[in-house]
Amino acid sequence: MISRRLRGITPYVPGEQPTEGRYIKLNTNENPYPPSPRIAELLATYDIETLRRYPDPTFTALRRAVADHHALRPECVFAGNGSDEVLSFAFFSFFDRSVAFPDPSYSFYPVYCDFYAIESQPIPLDESLEVDLAAFAAVAADGIAIANPNSPTGTYLDRRQIESIVSSAGPDRVVVVDEAYIEFGGESCVPLIDKFDNLLVVQTFSKSASLAGLRLGVALGCEELISSLFRAKDAFNSYPVHDLAQRIGVVALEEWNHTRASCDRIITTRERVSSSLASMGFRVLPSKANFLFASHGRLRGGELYRTLRERGILVRYFDSPRLTDFVRVTMGTDDEMDSFLEEASSA
Amino acid sequence: MISRRLRGITPYVPGEQPTEGRYIKLNTNENPYPPSPRIAELLATYDIETLRRYPDPTFTALRRAVADHHALRPECVFAGNGSDEVLSFAFFSFFDRSVAFPDPSYSFYPVYCDFYAIESQPIPLDESLEVDLAAFAAVAADGIAIANPNSPTGTYLDRRQIESIVSSAGPDRVVVVDEAYIEFGGESCVPLIDKFDNLLVVQTFSKSASLAGLRLGVALGCEELISSLFRAKDAFNSYPVHDLAQRIGVVALEEWNHTRASCDRIITTRERVSSSLASMGFRVLPSKANFLFASHGRLRGGELYRTLRERGILVRYFDSPRLTDFVRVTMGTDDEMDSFLEEASSA
Repeated sequence: MISRRLRGITPYVPGEQPTEGRYIKLNTNENPYPPSPRIAELLATYDIETLRRYPDPTFTALRRAVADHHALRPECVFAGNGSDEVLSFAFFSFFDRSVAFPDPSYSFYPVYCDFYAIESQPIPLDESLEVDLAAFAAVAADGIAIANPNSPTGTYLDRRQIESIVSSAGPDRVVVVDEAYIEFGGESCVPLIDKFDNLLVVQTFSKSASLAGLRLGVALGCEELISSLFRAKDAFNSYPVHDLAQRIGVVALEEWNHTRASCDRIITTRERVSSSLASMGFRVLPSKANFLFASHGRLRGGELYRTLRERGILVRYFDSPRLTDFVRVTMGTDDEMDSFLEEASSA
Repeated sequence: MISRRLRGITPYVPGEQPTEGRYIKLNTNENPYPPSPRIAELLATYDIETLRRYPDPTFTALRRAVADHHALRPECVFAGNGSDEVLSFAFFSFFDRSVAFPDPSYSFYPVYCDFYAIESQPIPLDESLEVDLAAFAAVAADGIAIANPNSPTGTYLDRRQIESIVSSAGPDRVVVVDEAYIEFGGESCVPLIDKFDNLLVVQTFSKSASLAGLRLGVALGCEELISSLFRAKDAFNSYPVHDLAQRIGVVALEEWNHTRASCDRIITTRERVSSSLASMGFRVLPSKANFLFASHGRLRGGELYRTLRERGILVRYFDSPRLTDFVRVTMGTDDEMDSFLEEASSA
């Protein structure tokens, strides 16, 4: 009964979302601070009769707000049911036979490739586990996807480095830059959109704006790329962004100072935790994300994960050769990170 | 820059969702009555801190509630971002090279086929614009999709007729029955799931439960079909159902009496409007849905659509050969339908 298409797929494995037990949850890069209180006001005064109608399939108000936020035109903005969906539509729309991406990187990229029968061309990180710029300048694939900052490593390319990749890709090959973690200290490459029609920037409200549960991601790019994403969307699900997400997204942008403040707090925590881990003997990669990628030295990633889990702390480890010594630790509140550091030091 | 995959697609065209102007909106089969007031209570007391976390990727509480509602096990329930997404995953997962569906039917079916490079095998409705049972017993396609009631015609197959199609498909070919409109007078074929592993039933909270803006659809079937849909979901977007949809879905099921009452009211309205249209000389197809498919006789569908639109009433017409004389009219409130009847009688 099952299609060959599906049988050939190894699905993405999301991080645990335990519905029972009390954990300090540092495994899925969620923001430890709540979203703006104005979102509670919106929900409390929302007219539920609105729900009987389909949401706006073209996201008019949300697109305008996102465009204003980035000093773009609304025609340069697409939205989807989380940036995962936006990325899926981008793979569908822009990568014909093959796509190159850093390896390791976000482990959903090869899964999208499976889903659409696109050939994956993984480009190994260099010996420092940084994205290999020279290799990306020379790729033969139909397109490129880069998480910046990269996950799970947290390392980062500056705007000039991204520009060199987009430029060397040439006008006919799309470069998707996945900026899920850009608000945690990196410089967005959105300003390059005016210069490069082949650049698509994907962002999310999940991490910086504390709205993972809402499911809202966006793509920013030239009008041709954006109208293509709309066509892909209308061949899959015409109304992917529910009405509350469209409205809450607008409020979240109006309340960006709130988001900025919680991101700044997370950056401060990250720098402190990074120093502490280093002084405990961990190898810690430089991070511009809301997580640290760290190797214990003695314990393997999986062992450290299990030890911490028994002590009520969830982190994430990756069962692949170059990552086997590491765990990825999301930055929680300062209290949560103190508990983590205490348990990690005695692991 | 655009993939051949996308260039080959003719996207679905959703019904108009005007953001300006005041229309009596009878074009997208929305429920004219609001959802249960308990949903407003849920929103008013919702802890927005919940939104900082990803939603449950396996929909635990929602699946349990849906399963209880249908006297199934939770393992027999899948959920998605509206039934459009659920249907998309079903096409991906169960239809290898080809799928048969009634023609005309929900115009998204051939679009899913384009999206996944599946061959469409449209089976023409019979001369009464009913689903051609004999033709479906003889199809050679890898699977079958049937909207029941059918859209845009509103006609309906009873459970015995659906059983004959599922049975003649045989155990290796999946039959997807799209019950988006089943609460408006039809008999669901969910009880057949115990008997047929090759039956997948798709339902939605959009129409009957007045929750189109929320985006929530479900699929019901044997464990193998459901676990396949989960695998497809995890190759596209791990968290397609936002947290509020998971919670509101549970409340909507607890408040099913509210939904039942508004569906019953719509059925009463439909019968009245159907009689009125018939007495005005319209040809009206028998409907078990929350809409009527009617032909004016003198005016083409497109002409009637434009005339009504100028007078502030939106209906839907379909620009395809066998449907060109018809409009599809969603049942609104009784007042709205009185306005519609008045304008239609003088069109």
